[in-house]
Amino acid sequence: MYLELINNANDIKNIDKADYPALAQEIREFLIEKISVTGGHLASNLGVVELTMALHLALDLPKDKIIWDVGHQSYTHKLLTGRKEGFDHLRQFHGMSGFPKTRESDFDAFDTGHSSTSISAGLGLVQARDILGGDETIVSVIGDGSLTGGMAYEALNNASKIEKNFVIILNDNNMSISENVGGLNKYLNNIRTANKYLDLKEGVYNALKGTPKGDSTVHKIRRLKNSLKTWVVPGMYFEDMGITYLGPVDGHDINGLVRVIKEAKKVNGACIVHVLTKKGKGYPPAEKHPARFHGAEPFDIETGVPSHPRTVSNYTDIFSTVMCKLGARDEKIVAITAAMPDGTGLKRFRNMYPDRFFDVGIAEEHAVTFAAGLAAGGLKPIVAIYSSFLQRAYDQIIHDVCIQNLPVIFAIDRAGLVGSDGETHQGLFDLSFLSSIPNMHVCAPKNKWELSDMLKFAVNFGYPIAIRYPRGTAYDGLKEYRAKVELGRAEWIYREKEIALFAVGSMVKTAEKVRDALKAKGHEVSLINARFVKPIDEDAVKDAARTHTLIVTMEENVFDGGYGEKILKCINENEISCEILNIAIPDCYVEHGNVEVLKKELRIDADSVVERILDMTE
Amino acid sequence: MYLELINNANDIKNIDKADYPALAQEIREFLIEKISVTGGHLASNLGVVELTMALHLALDLPKDKIIWDVGHQSYTHKLLTGRKEGFDHLRQFHGMSGFPKTRESDFDAFDTGHSSTSISAGLGLVQARDILGGDETIVSVIGDGSLTGGMAYEALNNASKIEKNFVIILNDNNMSISENVGGLNKYLNNIRTANKYLDLKEGVYNALKGTPKGDSTVHKIRRLKNSLKTWVVPGMYFEDMGITYLGPVDGHDINGLVRVIKEAKKVNGACIVHVLTKKGKGYPPAEKHPARFHGAEPFDIETGVPSHPRTVSNYTDIFSTVMCKLGARDEKIVAITAAMPDGTGLKRFRNMYPDRFFDVGIAEEHAVTFAAGLAAGGLKPIVAIYSSFLQRAYDQIIHDVCIQNLPVIFAIDRAGLVGSDGETHQGLFDLSFLSSIPNMHVCAPKNKWELSDMLKFAVNFGYPIAIRYPRGTAYDGLKEYRAKVELGRAEWIYREKEIALFAVGSMVKTAEKVRDALKAKGHEVSLINARFVKPIDEDAVKDAARTHTLIVTMEENVFDGGYGEKILKCINENEISCEILNIAIPDCYVEHGNVEVLKKELRIDADSVVERILDMTE
Repeated sequence: MYLELINNANDIKNIDKADYPALAQEIREFLIEKISVTGGHLASNLGVVELTMALHLALDLPKDKIIWDVGHQSYTHKLLTGRKEGFDHLRQFHGMSGFPKTRESDFDAFDTGHSSTSISAGLGLVQARDILGGDETIVSVIGDGSLTGGMAYEALNNASKIEKNFVIILNDNNMSISENVGGLNKYLNNIRTANKYLDLKEGVYNALKGTPKGDSTVHKIRRLKNSLKTWVVPGMYFEDMGITYLGPVDGHDINGLVRVIKEAKKVNGACIVHVLTKKGKGYPPAEKHPARFHGAEPFDIETGVPSHPRTVSNYTDIFSTVMCKLGARDEKIVAITAAMPDGTGLKRFRNMYPDRFFDVGIAEEHAVTFAAGLAAGGLKPIVAIYSSFLQRAYDQIIHDVCIQNLPVIFAIDRAGLVGSDGETHQGLFDLSFLSSIPNMHVCAPKNKWELSDMLKFAVNFGYPIAIRYPRGTAYDGLKEYRAKVELGRAEWIYREKEIALFAVGSMVKTAEKVRDALKAKGHEVSLINARFVKPIDEDAVKDAARTHTLIVTMEENVFDGGYGEKILKCINENEISCEILNIAIPDCYVEHGNVEVLKKELRIDADSVVERILDMTE
Repeated sequence: MYLELINNANDIKNIDKADYPALAQEIREFLIEKISVTGGHLASNLGVVELTMALHLALDLPKDKIIWDVGHQSYTHKLLTGRKEGFDHLRQFHGMSGFPKTRESDFDAFDTGHSSTSISAGLGLVQARDILGGDETIVSVIGDGSLTGGMAYEALNNASKIEKNFVIILNDNNMSISENVGGLNKYLNNIRTANKYLDLKEGVYNALKGTPKGDSTVHKIRRLKNSLKTWVVPGMYFEDMGITYLGPVDGHDINGLVRVIKEAKKVNGACIVHVLTKKGKGYPPAEKHPARFHGAEPFDIETGVPSHPRTVSNYTDIFSTVMCKLGARDEKIVAITAAMPDGTGLKRFRNMYPDRFFDVGIAEEHAVTFAAGLAAGGLKPIVAIYSSFLQRAYDQIIHDVCIQNLPVIFAIDRAGLVGSDGETHQGLFDLSFLSSIPNMHVCAPKNKWELSDMLKFAVNFGYPIAIRYPRGTAYDGLKEYRAKVELGRAEWIYREKEIALFAVGSMVKTAEKVRDALKAKGHEVSLINARFVKPIDEDAVKDAARTHTLIVTMEENVFDGGYGEKILKCINENEISCEILNIAIPDCYVEHGNVEVLKKELRIDADSVVERILDMTE
């Protein structure tokens, strides 16, 4: 009923103060209802309903800018800026993104997706404002989980230098996607248990609030703090760096939040507002299982149970199972995750071998160099990081793992198209950035048994190696093809002549369909499972080139630096004459949407590949 | 005289306590004398002479492990571990590395080169020790400059969780390579001006030191601290995270250092020892100009003046000059460096336009996302980062700059072979990791005028673009070839037939020599300056392929994902038949040494390229 009044940005400003809680309730119900149908990020969004409302009330949007760290918590923001209808096609192809997108709305100030970028980006907008002489307010909203990422700290270190206003909202829900970890969390915990900012200082605040200028109020509070050091221990972590600290504040008290945000806007320099929120707030199943309702599949509202329970294993499940088995066999095996024990499937390993499991927080750079240290110390570390997040540790792979040729194993989930999370999360570069690194080895399994075989190969390999596998259902076809995994050896699945399909990992399944279609048209088609992208199987390529007229390479990765390029090079260097068709992701970012739809759009689905081959052969 | 007694590791333990200062003095004289001849890192090494001696005295090497962050300060460590003779061939091909190398000595526990990795690596060794049941001491030595890098903070956040000993030496010289920046520095400054740990607590310490167990001493000091909060403000930054803090300690008092390090070894959990050192200590020119004596060329000991003063400009000088001119013309131009105002040449821009210059510390990730924010705010940011350090910001380029197609300009110095710094610093991957990113554009100038022209092109381009140029003397040949820079257009320098040399940036100069040699042998040779690696000039390639029998691509970058690959793809897609020879850096790490020597070794120098071409044509 109040939500009906919210059709455009700033409509919330017409709502009566007394009705805020009712509106918040309606927003929650709206989100739960919509996400129960489309799937999406629920727990984080339920946590920031009041915070988002308060920001919209205290700020002048779109002149003022909000940067949402990670960005999956921006649903209420989308709802309050005229995008109510978008929720019917949330995260679907050509539908509304689940993340802030400047191309989607003027109210989205900066695209996000990966963690810990918002303070850096906000600081850029702040400095641009000051150079260009603007007076807009810039607000970065960052979670306590994102603060475990080093670049947030690099940004804080720089934020301390500025002399004009910059508001940083620390949305502290005492959680990363899973439990939060480390020293900072320990520290924040101490604050959380202290009295609330507004309660504690109510008396002081009231005494001072008659003062005409806000700056001066803050100044006096700061002085007061300095004279009462025991009170300020909470904020000192930040204040020592030169950043004003206000908090902690109840993140579900809209009026209190509005008051503090207005206060923060008046501070000269960077100001952190420490807001305590509850992930999943208002929906008991999400409050109880925030990790499960982080990125949720469609679910039954009553019970919180997924509407279409998964009946088949995905690659993550296989990885999870194999890791537990390997852990039992070899005590030198240790596992590392960057804040994703659930997502990577390492939770079971953690439960079985807690002493050999490390959740380092959202800290991919540290994760990789830490793994290098573990390997240098004589262990067999397996680092499980999603493809797009591993981009964060590119230098550490080059510099800390591969120069020393240390036996670190990279288990790369979500490699290839990931679907509904869109541009920021697609894993389309890993074959390229990994295979150009000296001493690195890269492979990809065609099906679930091969993932298991490759992991077993990797733990006894003794050199850096990466295994990449896609999001979603693990392929269980081609079970009978299970030749021993050997370094740099491809696997001939069907050997004929004319057309040779060289497919990497997930594309083997597609290649089977392509082969069937081509055979139906009377072609002779070989299918080779590449297995290794580095080193490639030169013998197989030379063999195929001599006995076929067309080689087709197929990979769910960009062309540059990928598998197809290596085949071209091999053919060229060996001066073999053979036509080559490279099927790869084109040189563009790929938006959100169903993976099958995306593949069609990118012309890497079976039908398109068949067409492209027939174009060449007919 | 004392140095004569130091021929093997642990020989220092036989030196009389009273003679430590004399030995330190001899080490300094040795380092100054040797580095004045070979060049190398001087200022940082002079700063840690006593600290290194103290570590060798307090530890049991090589059982105990020292990880040197960055590692260019490890000269005294090398001297004390039997590598005295190595200094005659320091940083020369097949000579001693200027960085720790596990392959060089058992006393080098972990390879370093880039900043801020030591706590992560050390933590890995600590956890491996505890899992395998060892009792060695692990020490990471990290500078205050390196602490501005986010991954050091990610590691500290994790170090707070451990329960067994881990010693972190904070070597605080109040400097990065240039002045240090940011909130942490502000904070450390407050500590630096406080009384010294040993002096301040001398009385308390003496009273407690009779206690039999060290743990207990530390425990009592901690308790004392807690009751006297004003004393502990210094350490609280770390103690709040759960890390024991000891300091600050005079970094030039060997006995004091030994005492504190022994104390730190007994702490259960991570322990930071805050050591105050002076960069360049004991050599007045280096004390006065630590940045100039960071990585020094050979110099006259008496005056500190370079022995062979540079008379010709290098690319950095050109960049420096052009930036100042561009800054005068366009007030939207802003410049960003990650702690390298000197190295990148941005110092002059800083002096002329201080409000439009940002030194963000050793924080490449933040630098790039910050630049994205500046661009989103309406400015034209130019981020100047060396090629190998830009690897740190790979994800930020993909995720924060290129998805939003923001006009950030990357000025990439030290691209290609850098010489004496070796593996960790060679810039051999940038063409690959940048050109596989959608929306990115990549170019490389053939000579100094083209660098200027490309920068001018870039500031009006409006999209992400990277300009990569090598270390060292700027080529001033081919002055008369100065066709207008156009997106994706190569430049035909000589147009003949038979052999077409497509050369990228620095390789154009090499290609000229190759052409001369081939012409002397009667061949007809075209020379094309590639200019753009992304997008490539397909017309030029097709044209050349039709009119020549051999295309040779030449680049100072690995093959995978580089320029040559793109030419292969273009030829393949257009179904042109033409022989192709790809000259690129082979798939291996390249050690330190003179660049010309390295090129020969890698077979990318003019003579080798000629040989390789003749192999194909004859």
